[in-house]
Amino acid sequence: MKNTADKRKIIDIGDVAPSRKDFFVIGVFNPGVAQYKDEVILLLRVAEKAKSSGCLNVPIFNGETNAVEVKSFDLNDPDYNFKDPRVIYGKHRNYITSMSHLRLARSRDGIHFTVDDKPAICCQNKLQGYGVEDARITRIGDVYYIAYSSASEYGIVESLSVTKDFKTYEHKGAIFAPDNKDAAIFPDKINGKYYALHRPSSSEYGKPEMWIAESDNLTCWGNHRHFMSVRDGMFDSGRIGAGCVPFLTDEGWLELYHGATKENRYCLGAVLTDKNDPAKILARSRVPFMEPTEEFERNGFFGNVVFSCGCIARGNDVDVYYGAADKAVGLARIALRDILADMS
Amino acid sequence: MKNTADKRKIIDIGDVAPSRKDFFVIGVFNPGVAQYKDEVILLLRVAEKAKSSGCLNVPIFNGETNAVEVKSFDLNDPDYNFKDPRVIYGKHRNYITSMSHLRLARSRDGIHFTVDDKPAICCQNKLQGYGVEDARITRIGDVYYIAYSSASEYGIVESLSVTKDFKTYEHKGAIFAPDNKDAAIFPDKINGKYYALHRPSSSEYGKPEMWIAESDNLTCWGNHRHFMSVRDGMFDSGRIGAGCVPFLTDEGWLELYHGATKENRYCLGAVLTDKNDPAKILARSRVPFMEPTEEFERNGFFGNVVFSCGCIARGNDVDVYYGAADKAVGLARIALRDILADMS
Repeated sequence: MKNTADKRKIIDIGDVAPSRKDFFVIGVFNPGVAQYKDEVILLLRVAEKAKSSGCLNVPIFNGETNAVEVKSFDLNDPDYNFKDPRVIYGKHRNYITSMSHLRLARSRDGIHFTVDDKPAICCQNKLQGYGVEDARITRIGDVYYIAYSSASEYGIVESLSVTKDFKTYEHKGAIFAPDNKDAAIFPDKINGKYYALHRPSSSEYGKPEMWIAESDNLTCWGNHRHFMSVRDGMFDSGRIGAGCVPFLTDEGWLELYHGATKENRYCLGAVLTDKNDPAKILARSRVPFMEPTEEFERNGFFGNVVFSCGCIARGNDVDVYYGAADKAVGLARIALRDILADMS
Repeated sequence: MKNTADKRKIIDIGDVAPSRKDFFVIGVFNPGVAQYKDEVILLLRVAEKAKSSGCLNVPIFNGETNAVEVKSFDLNDPDYNFKDPRVIYGKHRNYITSMSHLRLARSRDGIHFTVDDKPAICCQNKLQGYGVEDARITRIGDVYYIAYSSASEYGIVESLSVTKDFKTYEHKGAIFAPDNKDAAIFPDKINGKYYALHRPSSSEYGKPEMWIAESDNLTCWGNHRHFMSVRDGMFDSGRIGAGCVPFLTDEGWLELYHGATKENRYCLGAVLTDKNDPAKILARSRVPFMEPTEEFERNGFFGNVVFSCGCIARGNDVDVYYGAADKAVGLARIALRDILADMS
């Protein structure tokens, strides 16, 4: 199965109100997904920039006032390099030109969504000073565990927030130390342990690859093991990371992950692991089951990207919600047998 | 107090037998320290190289055979760069020219040590493929928790092994994902939680600084928080990391840490934290309480380094065991009031 998925764009930046009058939305993408009562819930990543004229205004969390403020940069300031539209490189510290928060959207049919006016989860401490990104939602019993990444001047960490109603969220702190992102918690204890996939970045010897960790309580994690490698010459040669929250099939746990080439073309692949040992890999996609082929996937804020943080398994089909080109949200309905067919 | 410590070299490479006939010892340094019955125990880091003639032989763990083997490099092989005596830079993968293990030494007076002939802890899995390094030993009840780092092609992780007798060791896996080193576990629960200092390396935004984490069971860790920063223009401007296992004083928890300049001159400083909240910093060394001044600290395998992984508090004095120039072990007896005097 290649590119035969039923794909459509379901949310774009025009559907999302900015969180403040002095901000504007530049991307809505990479949603976390959950079935909550009779609705599909998305926790959208909404990226915003601050309106600027003359100078460059950048949203930044102030750890002393505990609030998001706007910092103005003089474009002629020789202490900063403004050439990259995404990052300001400074003498002592770098800044990101945009800031993301998580926004709730809800739908009864899973296709047509109503987006909240206000953020659900914003940066709330100094480890999240550049915003919060890429939620993955795991339901265990009637509790929803939301793992998401955040960048700051201290690095990139993976945090955990918990909710029962998608109205109030309890923050449980950083669960993986920097640099780490792309954490997906398995939705059940397996042989008495919780498991999570995560993606540390090694600065010296290692590559951006997937790891697996264990926990008794979902907030403290240990027994970190290397889970899966990049593959030279294939669609996942540059970097890989967890995509959707894994779900159980007749064949074992199925994880839909993202793989990028060194040229940053992001596709989706799948990995199947043992029902009783999620660290034991049984099969892996030989080719991606989804690639950036549509116009809205090829062109956006950062082109040639399909990137998923969540899906809903519906019997023989999987509804994969995904970020397209770091700008919009797409939905692909894919037959489970098509994903499994290209694995070995 | 500067450089007035009573310092002496107590173990050098001539005191340590190689672990194999085809290896030779290039450094014995950075020991973990524990009081065990009526003896002071050191877990020495012993770095070895493989004997070579013509080619370059390198010790490497083979994950398939689960054994340390010797890999031969042809010095004319164009796929590798051999200019750095410590690291071989390859097209697809780098190698370290030496491999470390942990070796036990024991002493009744804390000064004169008998070094075991055989390793206590060697690399035992693929995450430790380039060896194990820099043990820090925390006694809780009658159990000794040994945190130590290891490098491999997958990055640098911090692992935990446990012993009651320094004869058998139970391996508990990697407690911090890559890249991470310099973990020191506090020797008591504080308000119902265990705490550890650790040193993640961020590849993008963060700096090599100290963090603190919490645990219920010492094997799984969470609530990672940034603990302490480097300081421009000071002895700890380049990188900092935990040194000794923290110990309780009348003023609070005292942590003796290492701070290096960007030019890699390693000194020892101290940080004092609240008795009931180890994340709350009360005071920090304005100047190092120990600097590399002696010949054996200035010249060795990697010069201008004093680096401690453990100490024994003896009332008004602290016996600081330390690695000198990545080659030998030193012992400094320092008055506690001298360490505290230079803090603010």
